[in-house]
Amino acid sequence: MRVDLNSDMGEGFGPWKMGDDAAMLSIVTSANVACGLHAGDPEVMVETFRTAREKGVAVGAHPGFPDLWGFGRRIIPFSAGEIERLVAYQIGAAQALAAYAGHRITHVKAHGALGNLTQQDAEVAMAVNRAIRAVDPTLVCLTIALGHQERQAREMGLSCRSEIFADRAYTAEGHLVNRKLPGAVLHDPAETAARAVRMVKQGAIETIDGKLLETPIDSICVHSDTPEAVGIARAVREGLEAAGIAVRPFHEGE
Amino acid sequence: MRVDLNSDMGEGFGPWKMGDDAAMLSIVTSANVACGLHAGDPEVMVETFRTAREKGVAVGAHPGFPDLWGFGRRIIPFSAGEIERLVAYQIGAAQALAAYAGHRITHVKAHGALGNLTQQDAEVAMAVNRAIRAVDPTLVCLTIALGHQERQAREMGLSCRSEIFADRAYTAEGHLVNRKLPGAVLHDPAETAARAVRMVKQGAIETIDGKLLETPIDSICVHSDTPEAVGIARAVREGLEAAGIAVRPFHEGE
Amino acid sequence: MRVDLNSDMGEGFGPWKMGDDAAMLSIVTSANVACGLHAGDPEVMVETFRTAREKGVAVGAHPGFPDLWGFGRRIIPFSAGEIERLVAYQIGAAQALAAYAGHRITHVKAHGALGNLTQQDAEVAMAVNRAIRAVDPTLVCLTIALGHQERQAREMGLSCRSEIFADRAYTAEGHLVNRKLPGAVLHDPAETAARAVRMVKQGAIETIDGKLLETPIDSICVHSDTPEAVGIARAVREGLEAAGIAVRPFHEGE
Amino acid sequence: MRVDLNSDMGEGFGPWKMGDDAAMLSIVTSANVACGLHAGDPEVMVETFRTAREKGVAVGAHPGFPDLWGFGRRIIPFSAGEIERLVAYQIGAAQALAAYAGHRITHVKAHGALGNLTQQDAEVAMAVNRAIRAVDPTLVCLTIALGHQERQAREMGLSCRSEIFADRAYTAEGHLVNRKLPGAVLHDPAETAARAVRMVKQGAIETIDGKLLETPIDSICVHSDTPEAVGIARAVREGLEAAGIAVRPFHEGE
Repeated sequence: MRVDLNSDMGEGFGPWKMGDDAAMLSIVTSANVACGLHAGDPEVMVETFRTAREKGVAVGAHPGFPDLWGFGRRIIPFSAGEIERLVAYQIGAAQALAAYAGHRITHVKAHGALGNLTQQDAEVAMAVNRAIRAVDPTLVCLTIALGHQERQAREMGLSCRSEIFADRAYTAEGHLVNRKLPGAVLHDPAETAARAVRMVKQGAIETIDGKLLETPIDSICVHSDTPEAVGIARAVREGLEAAGIAVRPFHEGE
Repeated sequence: MRVDLNSDMGEGFGPWKMGDDAAMLSIVTSANVACGLHAGDPEVMVETFRTAREKGVAVGAHPGFPDLWGFGRRIIPFSAGEIERLVAYQIGAAQALAAYAGHRITHVKAHGALGNLTQQDAEVAMAVNRAIRAVDPTLVCLTIALGHQERQAREMGLSCRSEIFADRAYTAEGHLVNRKLPGAVLHDPAETAARAVRMVKQGAIETIDGKLLETPIDSICVHSDTPEAVGIARAVREGLEAAGIAVRPFHEGE
Repeated sequence: MRVDLNSDMGEGFGPWKMGDDAAMLSIVTSANVACGLHAGDPEVMVETFRTAREKGVAVGAHPGFPDLWGFGRRIIPFSAGEIERLVAYQIGAAQALAAYAGHRITHVKAHGALGNLTQQDAEVAMAVNRAIRAVDPTLVCLTIALGHQERQAREMGLSCRSEIFADRAYTAEGHLVNRKLPGAVLHDPAETAARAVRMVKQGAIETIDGKLLETPIDSICVHSDTPEAVGIARAVREGLEAAGIAVRPFHEGE
Repeated sequence: MRVDLNSDMGEGFGPWKMGDDAAMLSIVTSANVACGLHAGDPEVMVETFRTAREKGVAVGAHPGFPDLWGFGRRIIPFSAGEIERLVAYQIGAAQALAAYAGHRITHVKAHGALGNLTQQDAEVAMAVNRAIRAVDPTLVCLTIALGHQERQAREMGLSCRSEIFADRAYTAEGHLVNRKLPGAVLHDPAETAARAVRMVKQGAIETIDGKLLETPIDSICVHSDTPEAVGIARAVREGLEAAGIAVRPFHEGE
């Protein structure tokens, strides 16, 4: 039994920092690296790729809407075609800087508002998948479980891995509970870790109304940008390992 | 006897246009495509790559300083390391969008202020060459004749092609005469074409004081962003062909 | 009988031009000047203010969504409060540069997607009105006829002027017909001018289904960014004057 | 005996924070607020103006080069005219948002690389002064002591206040010692405070070679963006008050 542990990284910009990437890169097995349009700049990207390489962490491109001010969390009304090209642009930029840093991009995960849309909007999901296929069809699509991108990627023959969120509550439909609602986000490391372990073992997401939704669980996403992020990530990793679940990147040992 | 004819393309941004790319792509054999930081956006880039592919025009990444407002014509005081990473970022983005458009990046040429520095500043020249080598050492470095980047690229074993400007006067040292000085820019198509033919045949640049500076001349650069651009480009191409000089991209027929 | 003739101006950015501002500023009586977030930069703004001053054209701030790439034509999902502050920022910037150029901002008109929302979304309309009131309550709100901003501005005691579009068809509800539909945009200068004169004389908008919607008509908006813009603007002005309608800015002769 | 205590504020952007503004605004008497081009956005600006108003802290516009990525610390080669217009733009934006927040801009201080140039480059200094005069000649020019902007502002009849840095060493010429040199920056709160008190009492800057350079000292600048910033600011304020020097904004009690 094995699972990957992923987190968003390289989300600073110029003089500004976001999260404790050095600590997180000692815990996770895959890093989703911002590509400069919603966060990140070439300096931050290369530093993140270098540290990830040193620590044996796999890296993915983490494309988002071009919206530094909104950090990629606002839905910008791009057409599906425009999203394809925006995502392709960002994958290429990340591939080049990963190569520059002596590392290699092995997956792609959409960020923020774009990521949420890939789960719930079939057109946007297809746009991201088409971009990946056009740029490099060997890249793994890291997708939110139970969404459009996952289903489509499998249909298109792309390599696809499904992720769940360790610290977010799920609706009965398998969507994330709105952050503004009570109970939407778990803050206790031990509770979050125990739940993550249960979901991996069950092969199913626990919904807020107590049901189980079966799904492949290839990766667990932990946040990197909250004060408790490092504590939660460490607890999740330790909980998984204590339960006999190997925490490894997708490619290792395959 | 053969030579390439190159021009800068894809220099619009969002709602704004620059030059008549469609006309120019019917004349030149290589297009240097802006990568989004001083001009260009994913839409413009893909449209340019598609048109170039249809017309059999080779495409290169045309990285510049990240300065939309200044169109990459201002020297932004980046360190050599920062320039390396900026250039690598742009090459990768261009490679991905060229692939998306069914084309392939085969050369890199630095834009504007960055391009001028690659001729005259050894550190900046090395930064651009190192970026190319890190991302894809098979890419052709399209460099300004008689400059640091050209010399270094040959020493580093990179593939290097040297360009001259059809419509710009040269100083005795082989630098471009400052645009503000009289005679710095040629405006007459016939005169510009005749001079280009002479320089290719002589294998030497004609300086403003009437001397010849020997140099390989692999490509002739024509401008795309002036009212007379299309007329001059057409005259230069016709002049070259009338003189029995084949006008072809670097890769064709090799 | 009198009416103002307004157009959007200063919509270039850095190296890029948009429309023939010099020609338009010889025709219109009010110019809505982009404030740097969707178009315009301090250089373009000052040049526009200077030319307007020389030609006796009144100037207004023309705030839009912060979206250079999308030219302010995409709806960016800002909260009402964020829109208030975005608009206030742009008004202030325009006031300062108008003062620098020896001119004075006397009205505010929202641009593009933001402008459309002020007609149809009461919250956005209120946000723009609140921004105007906070920065300078003596500024004229130039609003789309028959919309929320117009009604609210009058209720709030702000100075309000209503505009119609010379070259755009109206639905039965007084909204602009979607540009993608046939007949949405008039292209013939004579026809556009005749219709504008009729609407001013009738004090009513002509809808696409042949009805009249009564409204104050204080200003006629003509486009500046199409190939036929100058011809249409001139025809409208000449048509109005030939019909005995004085074409003057809001403030003149009051 | 009295002096103002100023610091740079509102230097976050979108999701990113910089420094502990709330703590600093409880200590200083004047805040220099970033205007959106090198840092700050309308949200951050308004929040800073509101907190400053509540705490009785005077606010100034803090214009910088348009360079978010470089945080305004890189010299961008703008012409003097361009700098005038860039500074005017930022002053206006700040005035509008201060009004929106119920506060009022009473001074202007140039930021980062632009600020350093106002001390040492007469043309840039004049550009900033001309911008202030054009937008609102009643605004106080807060200038680095012993520099071009200070001298010119007095000659132009502008209201001028001179600042010294509490924690930076000065060369024999009254310039700041390069940050890369040893001793350039003081880190000990007590030592920094004692030195600030001495300089105010002496009416002179202490240089690194032990001399005194006489100058008006109207304000002391403390940094806000280092880990020790709050501690140093508090020590300086307490030191001044313990020495019987009133710490008050420029306008209070005049």
